[in-house]
Parts: sequence; C-alpha cells; structure tokens
Amino acid sequence: MSVDEDVNIRLSAFYTAISDDLDRTVEFWLKYSHDEEFGGFFTCLEADGKVYDERKFSWLLCRQVWTYARLYNDMPRYHQAHILEAARKGSEFIMKYVKDPKTNKCYLTLTREGKPIKSQRTIFSESFYVMAMAEMYRATKGDTYKKEAMAMMKQIVHWVKVDGSGLGPKIPQPTPTSSLAVPMILLMLIDQLGLMDPAHAGGYNDLADWCLEDVLKHVQRGGVVLENVSADGEELHGSEGRLINPGHAIETGWVLLDRAVKQGKEELKQVALDTFITESFNRGWDDEFGGLFYFIDADERPLVQLEWDMKLWWPHNEALVALLMAYKYTGEDKYLKMFAKVFDYSYGHFVDFKNGEWFGYLSREGKVKINAKGGEWKGCFHVPRSLMMCERLLREILQKQ
Amino acid sequence: MSVDEDVNIRLSAFYTAISDDLDRTVEFWLKYSHDEEFGGFFTCLEADGKVYDERKFSWLLCRQVWTYARLYNDMPRYHQAHILEAARKGSEFIMKYVKDPKTNKCYLTLTREGKPIKSQRTIFSESFYVMAMAEMYRATKGDTYKKEAMAMMKQIVHWVKVDGSGLGPKIPQPTPTSSLAVPMILLMLIDQLGLMDPAHAGGYNDLADWCLEDVLKHVQRGGVVLENVSADGEELHGSEGRLINPGHAIETGWVLLDRAVKQGKEELKQVALDTFITESFNRGWDDEFGGLFYFIDADERPLVQLEWDMKLWWPHNEALVALLMAYKYTGEDKYLKMFAKVFDYSYGHFVDFKNGEWFGYLSREGKVKINAKGGEWKGCFHVPRSLMMCERLLREILQKQ
Repeated sequence: MSVDEDVNIRLSAFYTAISDDLDRTVEFWLKYSHDEEFGGFFTCLEADGKVYDERKFSWLLCRQVWTYARLYNDMPRYHQAHILEAARKGSEFIMKYVKDPKTNKCYLTLTREGKPIKSQRTIFSESFYVMAMAEMYRATKGDTYKKEAMAMMKQIVHWVKVDGSGLGPKIPQPTPTSSLAVPMILLMLIDQLGLMDPAHAGGYNDLADWCLEDVLKHVQRGGVVLENVSADGEELHGSEGRLINPGHAIETGWVLLDRAVKQGKEELKQVALDTFITESFNRGWDDEFGGLFYFIDADERPLVQLEWDMKLWWPHNEALVALLMAYKYTGEDKYLKMFAKVFDYSYGHFVDFKNGEWFGYLSREGKVKINAKGGEWKGCFHVPRSLMMCERLLREILQKQ
Repeated sequence: MSVDEDVNIRLSAFYTAISDDLDRTVEFWLKYSHDEEFGGFFTCLEADGKVYDERKFSWLLCRQVWTYARLYNDMPRYHQAHILEAARKGSEFIMKYVKDPKTNKCYLTLTREGKPIKSQRTIFSESFYVMAMAEMYRATKGDTYKKEAMAMMKQIVHWVKVDGSGLGPKIPQPTPTSSLAVPMILLMLIDQLGLMDPAHAGGYNDLADWCLEDVLKHVQRGGVVLENVSADGEELHGSEGRLINPGHAIETGWVLLDRAVKQGKEELKQVALDTFITESFNRGWDDEFGGLFYFIDADERPLVQLEWDMKLWWPHNEALVALLMAYKYTGEDKYLKMFAKVFDYSYGHFVDFKNGEWFGYLSREGKVKINAKGGEWKGCFHVPRSLMMCERLLREILQKQ
C-alpha cells in the first residue's frame, strides 16, 4: 500500500467519524434543548440531556439559531423542514426577547420566559444576533432577517469605531488595553454578511483592514500571539501581557487563513500558518497528557488563571478546523499529523459516543470535570460548527486526491 | 492518659506547628516581597520567592501593611522595630499611589513604580485601605493614619448606603443581586475601627444592624448559605442562585460568631455555628480527596465555575479560625475534630515547610496546580491572619484548661 493510499484511508476514517459525530451532536440538541413551552433553547444540560438550569443565554440562543440555519443551508442531509423550523422558532424567541428595541443592546442572560436578567458592556451578544439573522436570511430570503442583520451590524460598527457610549457606562481605565476578541468577531461578521449577500461584501473593506491591523498588533516578540496588548500595540506589564490563549489564537488563525487564501494575500497566509496556527499549537500542546492548555504564559512563568491547565472542548474544535484547512491549502503533511493528534485526543476524551455532543471541561489529566454537555458558555455551536467545517474540508481534500 | 490529657497534647502540638508556620510565613514575605527600589511589595512570587510579575495590587499592598501592623500590635514576639518599619514603608507607598485623591477611589492594579493600570467598581481596595490605616494608627498613634481611615470609611458608607455614583459608572442590571461580600467586609471594617478607637465603635451600630440583616438574607432553604441572592433576599434563578462558596460562608461564620459572643446575641451565635460554619463545612468538605471545594451547587447539579473542585488555600485558613473559635466558645468536641481534619489536610498539602507560606491552588486530588506563593489575589494576608488568630485562640483554650 502506498503512502497516498495510507493517507486516503486515514482521511476517509476521519470523514466517517466526524460525520457520525455531527449527526449524534445535532440529535442531542434537537432532542433535549428545545423549550416547547416558552420557546428558545435550554443549554444547561447534563451529560444525558437533563436540564439543570432553565435560564437562557443570548450568545447561545443566537449561536444555536445560526447552527441550525447553517446546517440547513450548507449540509444537504440537513436541508430539511424540521431543521429550518427549529431555527425559525429559535429566531422568533431571540427577536422577541434578546434585543432591547430602545437601545439595540442585547441582554446577556434571560429567564426561561425571556425576561432580562443581566446586561454586559460588550458587542458579543449583538454580534451573535447578526450571525443568526444573516444565516436565517440565507435560509429563508425573509427580508426581516436581512434588515435586522444589517441594522445591528451598523449599530455595532458605530459602537466600536465611532462612539461606544451606547454600550453602557464604562469605568475609565488608566491604561486602555486591546483584546483579540473584538477584531476577530468583526472579521467573522464581515465574512458572514458577505455570504448573506455578496453585494454587501465590498462595503466592509475599510473595516476589514482596520480589523486585520488590530489583530496583527497581537503578534509580539517576533512571532508569538499574545491575548492582550496595549491599545498602542505594545506588550502589557507582567502576567497579563504574557498571556497566551492557544485556542483563541488558532481560531483567529483559520479566520485569517481563509481570508488570505480567498483574497490572494500571501504574506497574511504565512502569518496565519506559521504564527497563529503552528506557533500557538506548539506552545499550547501538553506533551505530558495531551490536549491543548487553556492558557499559557509566554515565558513559562506561573499563571494567575486557575483553569490554565484544563482542557476545554472549543480550542480542540478550532484546532481541528485550522489544521485541516492548513493541510488543504498547503498539502504539507505536518498539518495532517497535527490534525490527527488533536483528533485522537478529542475522540479519546471529549466525545460522548453514547449521548452525543462533547464534554466541555477536562482536567489536565483528561478527566471530565463538569459532567454536562452545556452551560452558560457552552451550547450548540463550537462542536457542530467545527464538525460541519471539517466534514466539508475532508470531502474537498478527498475529492482532490 | 485521660481524654483531657490527650486533647491537651494535641492542642499543644497544633500550637507549636502553627506558631512555627507563622514564623516561616512572615520570614518569607520579609525576605522576598519588599521592593527596595520603588517601595511597596511584590506579591507575584514563585515557590522559592522569585518575582514573576512586578505589578502591584492594591488589595494586597493594603493587606500586607495591615498584617505587619497587626503582628506588631498583637504578637509580642513581632513587636519589633523592623516589623513596624516594614509596615510604615508599605503604608507610605499606598498613601502615595493607591488612592486617587480627586475621587477617593483606590486603583486595583499598579505598575511597579506605582502608576495606575486598572480600576474596579467595588469598595474592596478602599476597604483594605481602611484596614491598613486603622491598624497603622494602633501601631503608631499617628493622626494621619486615623484621619485617612475615618475619611475613607465615611466615603465607603456614602457609596454603599447613599449614592454609589462616585464608584464609577454602572451598567444598569435588569435584576439587581446581592453578594455576601459587601456586608461582610463592612462588618470587618466596623470591628477594625472599634479596635482602633473604642470611642468610635458605637457610631456604627446602625450600619452593623443593616449589614447583619443583609448577611442573613443569604440564609435560604431553612439553613443553607447561598453566595448570591436577589436584592429582596430571594433565591436567584438557576445555578447562580444555587451557588455555595463554603470558604466565604465559613469566614462570615467566624465574623458573626465573634460579634454574637461579644454582644451576647444568643440567636446569632447559633446561626453562625449551625448554619454558616457547620452546614457550610459539611457541604463543602470533599469526602473522597479531603479539603474544601471552592464552589458547590446546593442541589449537587453541575457547576459553571471551572475551578469549582479545586482546593484553595484561603477557605482552609478561614475554616481553621472558625472551627477553633467555635470550639473555644462551645467546648464541643465536634469542632475540635473538624479543626483537626482541616489542620491535617492543610499541613499535608498546602504548607511549604522549606520556604514558608502556603501554596495557593491545588487540584481536587491535592496536587499543586500553580507553583507560586502569591499572585494577583494571594499575598501576605490570609495565611498570617489565620495563623495569628489560631495561635491566640489555642493559647486561650490551653490556658483555660
């Protein structure tokens, strides 16, 4: 058997495992998360799907609508009426309860019935609202969804670039900092709106350039992605400045790589591959127990984050996407090897073959620490998004070979 | 050998171990944490005392001044010029850099040189500032310290009871909540100011009554101390409402117990003993690996706090104080047994017999997870405060027997 045949066998095995896992995962959310009484989705679900907290979380409500709509739009076997109906019912709930129509701000937490509990001074709830609406427009061509997406995007850009006072009051900070999350999510929104309607893609070129510049500020020390830098793009003092979030850097890596390839930006492609993906992966991987650390210190000094050595599900989801995309675009064997490493760790530790979905939080040693499939920050999003993208990438790679 | 003799031998052994530990701990901070160049204290210290982050943290700067001054004031073997001098130099730094004289707000984080980095919308930096100043007045009778303490206390009471706008802007929350921390710290300040000058003690009676009422709102379900309740004293929705922080409840327990005994409040004494201390201890103790969990859920459902099952140093410091105080005031053997359990776990896991101070963060299984003695939130405070109080309690108990 030739090397190529070996590779093809492995790629096909990945494809089958990932495709089966996506089906188990979607089944889990369809079966356990729908609130038939009040609408919307429960996300605080125990290992077997039992609800342990009836509150609802705007990020996760919007992301679940996006996931169902994306499945319906892009995955032929999910282009089914009941998937679209699940997305539609979810979007009804979010349009009714998540957004405060007076301020355009979206709440962070709601009661089961949709009453607001908490607000947050960020653009994240609002960004996921845009994602959900834009993907619903792709699915239905319903004008309301498109209008909602465009209006909220305009509002977000205003808050970020012109005047943030509408986000709510802010405690003035003596030293302003810049986190990787804001330019990253804006790049994702730009991609999403371009997908919704290619006619709009050009309208965000200036914003995209600004985002790229802001993201690249985080590359410090000649090639290390630091999570927090000063607003001027300098390394911050002490532990805060040295903090690396490998999963987040790798996620940014695939967003940049995808953009660089589509726009023929060779230099950006290399930064995405070498710095955001490879360097962050090598630093973040735990050689002793396997898996990606949640946080590391660029100088290997002690961390202040208590959960630094835990293995969280989503960095592994992001790494699967980034490494497979890197393999597809370069054909370099090293990326496939790294992908296989993450795949083996994930399917040996995170995946629940019985009930579907992944466990979210493991100890450094790989033991399940929170015996649940979802919570305040984990819902129907990272796992299915990653599996959808990997299934598609694998199909494209296999077809090419 | 009679039971009493057995008990006395064990009490004497505790006394010696704790007294030695206090000496090792104070030595650690004197040796490694002083910044001879810019003043103030480093707290980000590795296991052997090496500085890994030069930033300075207002909570910890103030607490270290308090600790040195309290050692000087209350522990005859520390009533020495170099201890007072260490406290004095620290208080010079905090009076110069921690407080913004225009607003009376204290910063949260500073650079090594004392430049402000971060601010926070709470009263905690300011409360520890009061603690430091009040204890410095006890040590020196210097009027400036007393004036600073009284003025800042007045300011805090204004922020909490009259108008919080001076704390900085606040995002309005649809459902206001009440956390155990605010009334707790105010009770500690009232005790501290009464100790500074007994003439002032009576002036805070109304405030103390309000604090007690607010603390007791957290007793729910007929005898469980919940960390967060609604402003009206109702249980909150879901996981947030069910959250128990055993260390915090137990710490509140000894503050209430001390106050109840000194003021002859029998009912409060029983609530402190049965609910805050015993019930929280029994729920919080990990029967499998020993030690107190950081967080638990009142219904034993999954937690959203990733660090829920870690063993942190300070709940064990608080439990040592609370259980020994409970034993002193009741003479009940069960409290001494519980104390011995915490003592054995702590001296088997947290204590660094070689370099002094305790490790701060262990895994559920008892392995050191952050190989450091201090950080952004751990400095020279919980360990020496607990050891001072336990040494004194043990001496009083032994003298009585």
